[in-house]
Amino acid sequence: MEGFNVAIVGATDIVGQEIVKVLEQHKFPVASIQLLSPQYSSGVKLLFNHQRIEVKEAKPELFRDVDIAFFSVSADISRRLAPLAAETGAVVIDDSGAFDMSSTVPLVVPEVNPEDMEWHKGIIASPRCSTIEMVVALHPLHKVNPIKRIVLSTYESVSSSGSAALKEMTNQARLVLEGRRICPHVYSHQIAFNVLPEIGVFLDNGYTREEQRIAEQARRIWHTENIAISATCVRVPVWFGHSQAVTVEFGSPITPDEAKKILAQAAGVRVLDDPTVSFYPQPWAASGSDHVFVGRIRKDVSHPNGLVMWIVADNVRKGAALNAVQIAETGIERDWVGVKQSLASLNE
Amino acid sequence: MEGFNVAIVGATDIVGQEIVKVLEQHKFPVASIQLLSPQYSSGVKLLFNHQRIEVKEAKPELFRDVDIAFFSVSADISRRLAPLAAETGAVVIDDSGAFDMSSTVPLVVPEVNPEDMEWHKGIIASPRCSTIEMVVALHPLHKVNPIKRIVLSTYESVSSSGSAALKEMTNQARLVLEGRRICPHVYSHQIAFNVLPEIGVFLDNGYTREEQRIAEQARRIWHTENIAISATCVRVPVWFGHSQAVTVEFGSPITPDEAKKILAQAAGVRVLDDPTVSFYPQPWAASGSDHVFVGRIRKDVSHPNGLVMWIVADNVRKGAALNAVQIAETGIERDWVGVKQSLASLNE
Repeated sequence: MEGFNVAIVGATDIVGQEIVKVLEQHKFPVASIQLLSPQYSSGVKLLFNHQRIEVKEAKPELFRDVDIAFFSVSADISRRLAPLAAETGAVVIDDSGAFDMSSTVPLVVPEVNPEDMEWHKGIIASPRCSTIEMVVALHPLHKVNPIKRIVLSTYESVSSSGSAALKEMTNQARLVLEGRRICPHVYSHQIAFNVLPEIGVFLDNGYTREEQRIAEQARRIWHTENIAISATCVRVPVWFGHSQAVTVEFGSPITPDEAKKILAQAAGVRVLDDPTVSFYPQPWAASGSDHVFVGRIRKDVSHPNGLVMWIVADNVRKGAALNAVQIAETGIERDWVGVKQSLASLNE
Repeated sequence: MEGFNVAIVGATDIVGQEIVKVLEQHKFPVASIQLLSPQYSSGVKLLFNHQRIEVKEAKPELFRDVDIAFFSVSADISRRLAPLAAETGAVVIDDSGAFDMSSTVPLVVPEVNPEDMEWHKGIIASPRCSTIEMVVALHPLHKVNPIKRIVLSTYESVSSSGSAALKEMTNQARLVLEGRRICPHVYSHQIAFNVLPEIGVFLDNGYTREEQRIAEQARRIWHTENIAISATCVRVPVWFGHSQAVTVEFGSPITPDEAKKILAQAAGVRVLDDPTVSFYPQPWAASGSDHVFVGRIRKDVSHPNGLVMWIVADNVRKGAALNAVQIAETGIERDWVGVKQSLASLNE
């Protein structure tokens, strides 16, 4: 196999850079690669497999020969550019949220609903980081004992707000430790040594867009309207890794031991659960890992059919870049994503 | 009134120092004060009302003339010393947890169950910081619409682990920012730029002691066995202020507007809730304040009788020192705490 012509739109930001890294590490069959930026780019060069590649401004004509285009940009840019890329016959894998609820775009987590890729029409959406780690961890349980309700509290790192947020948190921490004043830019308030219950814009119902999206995305991925989900999303002063305290009500009782046994064999999941030696998932330790880590699995003492657990994953890697590459890999394996027919042959 | 002979046991640690500050600020009627330490003290002096007072080792005979003794030490020291202090006729106000579940010791949050003080036998217990802020915020709602179930996720600051933890977090943050290695002592793992789902020792059921205690204490304070409570307690890299994401199921539906109206008039509570301008409680801002702050009050979209809210309070102040002083003040006001009879007159 010769490989695929790949483009990464948003190659200069955190997730784009992590996509580059995952493609390299997975020895993804790349015939050619374009690193694109939504803005004008003045010739900055980035590495791919030890080659220096100039970042170019993403323009529709650049997708002509592209087979697979990873998009990690803002929703409005995706909304404009992704359909143009797909029109050329490229398969777009987009994590911007622009197509989350579009009936013509499947929303895919390969461990959960790979078969939804089959009906893609050129664009496949990758969900929010928090949705991905939650459904990867809960799906193996949901398959054997359907979930009725989820109450979720998140502890989300700053990296999912982009590189400016990483810098803001680091600089603030330095200034605060020196006893100096800080001035927030990316976030509404100080994030260093503080926690902020605000991720995404606020909606009329008092939830944030992020809180509502996790619920909507999870139901869409699971193809059900029958799971009630209430989330509180909170930003914490952590660079990488999103943590979640999850309270789950199942259709019937399930013991922690049963759950551990099921999760121990689940794709993409690692169980870290030995309280006797303080062994549980932590964002600091999960940083850079491919897995969704689950621990503190225990009976919900407030509900007969409930379990409580603690889920952690690297939001940039498993929560974004890796999921996008896994979509491409799974699609290739099952022939839902391939080398594109030339436009000429398509038009014949 | 001449005032009371007061002792503070544990005067050198964070909560003891905060009790000193609250007594000064409230102009508590102090006739004399003793600052005591559970360990041998080599003459260190601390200020009270601009006077330098030598810290002495806490010994039973020192309580002879004490009317009110605030205890903020470990549970085993309280278990040994507090009954001896109470035997002299002093009223002990203890936050160690040693007497939480003792049927002869009332567990009191003055905004919630002041009347339990009436039957004290020399010792009154003050609950854990997380319990205090939760019940102060929820009690006004519980009174009008009895609570059935609470799912709680906490975001707890390091100060409730004592001054060594404050230092550990600060030093770790400095070292990590310099790219150097850290070695945890107070906590099992790194706390700077990380979150740890471990507060208190782990029990056989997978919960920690802290998680179980919040549930037990809340039910005891509310005098009911009919509230199911499941907590996940998490340490976050914040110096002062505990935050809570709280999902509450009431006996019947209650709207966010009704809840806000009730809480706006509640003792000890401040509602900070205007999402349009990112106005909500934060630990950084709550630090040093007497109030329990409540925000992000919204309908629980996963339950018809549910509300979700975000509660923040200064764990050292409202969560410990202030509650202890409020117990003394309320007790004095209602004549359940007073200047002690001399032992001679008691023995007559």
